[in-house]
Amino acid sequence: MKRIYLLLACLLFNTLALFAQNTTESRTAVIRTAGFVCLDKVYNSELTAPYDILQHTIYRDSLNYIECFVVTPDGKPFVTSEGLTITPHYSFANVPDIDILVIPSTENSMDADLKNKRYMEWIRYAAEKAEYVMTLCDGAFPLAATGLLNGRLATTFPSDRERLQKMFPEVKVKTNVNFVSHGKYITSVGGALSFEPALYLAQKLYGYKNAHRLGVGLVLDWQLSEIPHIVIEE
Amino acid sequence: MKRIYLLLACLLFNTLALFAQNTTESRTAVIRTAGFVCLDKVYNSELTAPYDILQHTIYRDSLNYIECFVVTPDGKPFVTSEGLTITPHYSFANVPDIDILVIPSTENSMDADLKNKRYMEWIRYAAEKAEYVMTLCDGAFPLAATGLLNGRLATTFPSDRERLQKMFPEVKVKTNVNFVSHGKYITSVGGALSFEPALYLAQKLYGYKNAHRLGVGLVLDWQLSEIPHIVIEE
Repeated sequence: MKRIYLLLACLLFNTLALFAQNTTESRTAVIRTAGFVCLDKVYNSELTAPYDILQHTIYRDSLNYIECFVVTPDGKPFVTSEGLTITPHYSFANVPDIDILVIPSTENSMDADLKNKRYMEWIRYAAEKAEYVMTLCDGAFPLAATGLLNGRLATTFPSDRERLQKMFPEVKVKTNVNFVSHGKYITSVGGALSFEPALYLAQKLYGYKNAHRLGVGLVLDWQLSEIPHIVIEE
Repeated sequence: MKRIYLLLACLLFNTLALFAQNTTESRTAVIRTAGFVCLDKVYNSELTAPYDILQHTIYRDSLNYIECFVVTPDGKPFVTSEGLTITPHYSFANVPDIDILVIPSTENSMDADLKNKRYMEWIRYAAEKAEYVMTLCDGAFPLAATGLLNGRLATTFPSDRERLQKMFPEVKVKTNVNFVSHGKYITSVGGALSFEPALYLAQKLYGYKNAHRLGVGLVLDWQLSEIPHIVIEE
């Protein structure tokens, strides 16, 4: 009799296990990675604003969201322009594949960073491989320096547009827009408006309703039509 | 003859040294401190947005600015709600005097944080002592729990206002405003609008032109009159 109970218990266990497996497997998880590449003197808001929008997608759908992380060349703590000390999740040596590469500006985006060979080589490699590349503020400079923006429309921090155009004459620098999305490259003005290119990308990936909900979570009434921007599909 | 040149050189040096001293001493440095109190699961944007506005005041006038720092109970690294690991500048044990206390919200501002005795006792002490207290989003809850908002107008994250009112019936919770400044207490909706209460305070301390300039640095056209807000002087 004991043996029968044991057998029944085993059957029940197996059935439940199979059921659980099927339930889990009924939807395939779609998890994109967003890698925020940082150096010392990165600006806080240009790191955290898009980070928050993209990371909050996990509250939308736990099987279809964006996993955010910070990567630096050596994986050691860095100090932001405003003085926060942040420990990155990865170094260039151990960072997972990046679907969405995000380049926030640093104090040195227009000069010293461009001479940082290891950083620049990695940016080119990661940007070419990524599904999307987003720059905030002067993050457009290292991206432009890879040549990947050549022939494309782009923008940057308002008072640095002229410099971007002079340094990279093959980039078509746009004024009077908050962001430009040209193919997979999204460049933006940065600062407090750094939420916008991320909300635009969220809308592209998950639709208006979901993007709007992400905005509400950060007390923004997201309406793409109200934002000066340019979109060119490739 | 050589001695005369040496004497003249000495005289010149002393005169220049005195002149330099007088020039430096002609203005007294006015440096306010802004302490951002954090716990694990603090929200990124509610920490960095006001931090950036207040910290950037150093670019306005190197003798009259706000020095920002992060303080936690134990001074050990904490992890934000979105997953950034930040090392604070101070613990409760060694934090300098705070002129502007900033309380960003955490995931637990409405419940667990209020039961954190050490945190709550420190909040009350630091808030009473500060020249200004600013809360972002649900940072209003720990401040209200001290009793310091009793009889005063305040606000919080839009969908948490009803809860704030229920939990603290002596606080006059306002809706349809982005921030409330009642005496030294500035409470605000938080999220992406967390720049606003800091710009308001910058305008109060340094005037409209300087606040506007701080806004431009973060691509914001700061106009207080366009922001729904309430100010009550005490």
